[in-house]
Amino acid sequence: MSEYKYPFNDILFSLQSVAQIERLTPYLHDTVDDSLLEAILEEAGKLAEQVIAPINASGDKEGSRVESGEVIEAKGFKEAFKAYADGGWIGLSGDPEYGGQGLPSYIATAVNEGVQAANLAFSLCPLLSMGAIEAISQHASEILKNRYLPKMLAGEWAGTMNLTESSAGSDLAAIACKAIPDGDVFRIKGQKIFITWGDHQMSDNIIHLVLARLPNAPEGVKGISLFIVPKFLLDNQGEPAERNDVHVVSVEHKMGIHASPTCVMSFGDKEGAVGYLVGKENDGIKAMFTMMNNARQGVGLQGLAISERAYQQALAYAIDRKQGMNASRTARAAIIEHPDVLRMLMTMKSQIDAMRSLIYVAAVENDLSHFATGEVQKQAVIRTALYTPIVKGWITEQAQEITSLAIQVHGGMGFIEETGVAQHARDARILPIYEGTNGIQAIDLIGRKLHSDKGEGMMSLLADIESELTHWQATDMAPYAEKVTVMLEQAKAATQSCLEAMQEDPVLGTGLAYPYMMLMGYLIGAWLQMRALHAVQGNNKLDDVQKASWQHSVGFYCDHVLPRAFGYAHEIKFGKTTVDKLNKNAFNR
Amino acid sequence: MSEYKYPFNDILFSLQSVAQIERLTPYLHDTVDDSLLEAILEEAGKLAEQVIAPINASGDKEGSRVESGEVIEAKGFKEAFKAYADGGWIGLSGDPEYGGQGLPSYIATAVNEGVQAANLAFSLCPLLSMGAIEAISQHASEILKNRYLPKMLAGEWAGTMNLTESSAGSDLAAIACKAIPDGDVFRIKGQKIFITWGDHQMSDNIIHLVLARLPNAPEGVKGISLFIVPKFLLDNQGEPAERNDVHVVSVEHKMGIHASPTCVMSFGDKEGAVGYLVGKENDGIKAMFTMMNNARQGVGLQGLAISERAYQQALAYAIDRKQGMNASRTARAAIIEHPDVLRMLMTMKSQIDAMRSLIYVAAVENDLSHFATGEVQKQAVIRTALYTPIVKGWITEQAQEITSLAIQVHGGMGFIEETGVAQHARDARILPIYEGTNGIQAIDLIGRKLHSDKGEGMMSLLADIESELTHWQATDMAPYAEKVTVMLEQAKAATQSCLEAMQEDPVLGTGLAYPYMMLMGYLIGAWLQMRALHAVQGNNKLDDVQKASWQHSVGFYCDHVLPRAFGYAHEIKFGKTTVDKLNKNAFNR
Repeated sequence: MSEYKYPFNDILFSLQSVAQIERLTPYLHDTVDDSLLEAILEEAGKLAEQVIAPINASGDKEGSRVESGEVIEAKGFKEAFKAYADGGWIGLSGDPEYGGQGLPSYIATAVNEGVQAANLAFSLCPLLSMGAIEAISQHASEILKNRYLPKMLAGEWAGTMNLTESSAGSDLAAIACKAIPDGDVFRIKGQKIFITWGDHQMSDNIIHLVLARLPNAPEGVKGISLFIVPKFLLDNQGEPAERNDVHVVSVEHKMGIHASPTCVMSFGDKEGAVGYLVGKENDGIKAMFTMMNNARQGVGLQGLAISERAYQQALAYAIDRKQGMNASRTARAAIIEHPDVLRMLMTMKSQIDAMRSLIYVAAVENDLSHFATGEVQKQAVIRTALYTPIVKGWITEQAQEITSLAIQVHGGMGFIEETGVAQHARDARILPIYEGTNGIQAIDLIGRKLHSDKGEGMMSLLADIESELTHWQATDMAPYAEKVTVMLEQAKAATQSCLEAMQEDPVLGTGLAYPYMMLMGYLIGAWLQMRALHAVQGNNKLDDVQKASWQHSVGFYCDHVLPRAFGYAHEIKFGKTTVDKLNKNAFNR
Repeated sequence: MSEYKYPFNDILFSLQSVAQIERLTPYLHDTVDDSLLEAILEEAGKLAEQVIAPINASGDKEGSRVESGEVIEAKGFKEAFKAYADGGWIGLSGDPEYGGQGLPSYIATAVNEGVQAANLAFSLCPLLSMGAIEAISQHASEILKNRYLPKMLAGEWAGTMNLTESSAGSDLAAIACKAIPDGDVFRIKGQKIFITWGDHQMSDNIIHLVLARLPNAPEGVKGISLFIVPKFLLDNQGEPAERNDVHVVSVEHKMGIHASPTCVMSFGDKEGAVGYLVGKENDGIKAMFTMMNNARQGVGLQGLAISERAYQQALAYAIDRKQGMNASRTARAAIIEHPDVLRMLMTMKSQIDAMRSLIYVAAVENDLSHFATGEVQKQAVIRTALYTPIVKGWITEQAQEITSLAIQVHGGMGFIEETGVAQHARDARILPIYEGTNGIQAIDLIGRKLHSDKGEGMMSLLADIESELTHWQATDMAPYAEKVTVMLEQAKAATQSCLEAMQEDPVLGTGLAYPYMMLMGYLIGAWLQMRALHAVQGNNKLDDVQKASWQHSVGFYCDHVLPRAFGYAHEIKFGKTTVDKLNKNAFNR
């Protein structure tokens, strides 16, 4: 099993030269200079490599279990979580008023890339905590904020998100969990499933955020409210005291992320779990949606992270493993000398480069949408909304291919669990599913993002891409720029086709959503690969080998990855009727 | 968990109307009429559905283990194997002289589709036995044949193939296992890895076929011989008696096919395992290669089978699971009513239809290559050689996508092991690896098949495709025929490019092998989908719903699956330089 190496150089380059973090400078008042950024990333790399990566394979093997109504997590996780919390990593982007460090979220993104690559199952606990922190920060009353945020930001208490029920997965409108008023609190009753890190022993308390319905609430998503339900109720000193009526029922046996307990949670088996309303009554879905960009971009980041991890392992194996003869047939060859293995490795590498660019570009837009002002902020909100489903959907689809290729490079050894590479593929398989399936992402892109503003936001993005491409066509990057421009034209046409399809019938139109999302992912990837190459050429921190590596990556992407988008464009152009006609009888034979 | 239903109608249709089994009639003297074929398939379906499918999930969970130096297989497997053997299924294609039924191999293929879909891990034991039977039938002396074949054909004894060693995987030239002459037998010494069903308790004896080197044998593949090494040596009555010096060391922990013990086998820990030479000295690789078409097509069949199994489960779930509202927003919808779910299901279905057509077309060519005479036989040998890497490579790649889509259709439930659908994806992940990785398949296609006859065989195949397409262009299938013709032209050009690349440099040329294999797979799939549709139109056994289902499948394939081949054609046309330039430094950053 190879060791994980935090890709410090690539991440820093991506932030500075592709995502152009200097765009944030006017709004951040120089709180983050280069040396601070580098120091943070260096420490994050050490944490990921030395503390969190070493318990990844053992956690997969051991998993987590329920004992006497409590979840016991895998060995070493508690210590790792303490190290993580003590390092102040959970509060990185948190509100300084409650003990957070108030840093822009792109830094947390860069830190999380390492943590997630090192150990996806582990990373979900702090990630869910950060989600809960954000929901409380943005929507809860001052009293609740003061009571919960400082401990959560310090990592003494963890947080969870409780949305799904057995009949309410993609369809939150079907949520049935009840919240019954009881004085100034509520009694929560119902069962939630798929609750990530729903219980564990790593923190002194667990703060559950729960979606539930008040009596006589309107039907559907407009009748759902959000509640804080702590595992331990707080005493007058604000310390965990009495056990609340919320319990883990079981943990699921899953294909991957074994060390992350996916819990069935029961609320209110006895008197009802005590819950505190967050925000307004019946306004719970809105609170969820404000977190959605972050959470969905976070899953896209997981796709990048685990792809990088799998790629590193495949590369190390390909350099080490000897099989067959070299080209001149004079000696046994390392398999990396065989053209088809080089093809597989560069398929992984060039896509990872593009995915990373997109991740950090989207993270910076996300920060601009919070920190910037005026027109810049307004545009960043739109751009973030557009990027989010592509980050989540396209990147996690790529992660399936890349983690599978990592197995393939290993040959028979890839299928043996002890090699460790199969775990990455098993872990990665959840990514296209949770936080909104990729089908939902695609429908979000074509519907809520494209259709609802009549394509204005997307046209503006495509115009920006075009303007950069035009600029590069006057440079020695012209051959690449031409290839990407061909695809840009396809993307423009596809955007028009999708707009028309959605206008005609916003349900049937979603039959084109998936190819559209994938087409846009590949195009945006190509555009950002070019931006990276442009930056590389003028970067005197990179040596010739590093620059050549970028040349290979971008060249390969344009000739071997981007062409896939022709297929998607073709589907959109010519394939509407065949999807429209489908119905369940089509499968009767 | 849904139940497996043997796709009797689709298989029969594929055999009769797409693979055109009547082509074999002149050579088989009417040994197989329609009613016999139907009777066999019906029984095979029952066996698969009722005996073998029910132990698939339990076998995955239990796996196999080593106890006191013996492999203990999962519960119920021994009984299932006995039922399978007693039904005469192992000897279906075997030589009647030794107790086989002498039926053409397409029938065994149709039977095996069911067995493999029902339980991939189980199916590997009889499959490997059939491989061993074939090797012995074709290469061993009469004495050895008489001694081993009857019991093996009856399923009383199983067989295994022992090729791989830890330094000799794709590269058999590196085999180091020794065979030392000892009177008229040989003493085998060495370790083999990845031996499928290398030990178990399901049969009275296990006949290992082992590749090893004689003293002073030439280096490389020309110095490898093939030996029979039985687990129990035979007494004078030909019954298993003394234990031979071959033992299982351990079984691997794998990502999938848990119930199939993948063994490390040790030969000759003590005095050396007794082995009997099969065929001539140093001629072992040739014996392996004569089995290769069957074995590789067999793995392609596994790809089809497990795809069908996963598809059936996804379809059943999509019909049952309610989530979201229907198009008119009047009621909750089964998820199959959502266009993106229909898209996923038809992506699975239309590819499975194409894959099945290719499987049976290739099986019939394979039979013609054995049973036919003169020019027909000669052409069938060439055609079989061309189809084999595409069957193995392209179909098993599709199986990755299809089994993954089956998970995706299940949403969160797909990631939970108890649902059973994740097992199909885990099991399927071995298929692109074993029996020659898909990279090796692609190189076989572009090298040993395309380059070595200067493209003659491939051009003849493309000409046959063109002539059928031309015929269909004069029918109401013209719109489809035009789409496929566009791709045919791309394939012709790609074939020329690949020929030139291989002529220029047969090592570097292999950088184009994978996209070429995939392009040809999608094209051949489209051609056979059209052939199926053509047959459907004139088939009065099919009702209107069934006919419409084929229309959907073929239309969707042409508009949504085939367009992927544009990407592969583009890679071949414009991407040679970028692959050629790759080297291991390209990854240094």
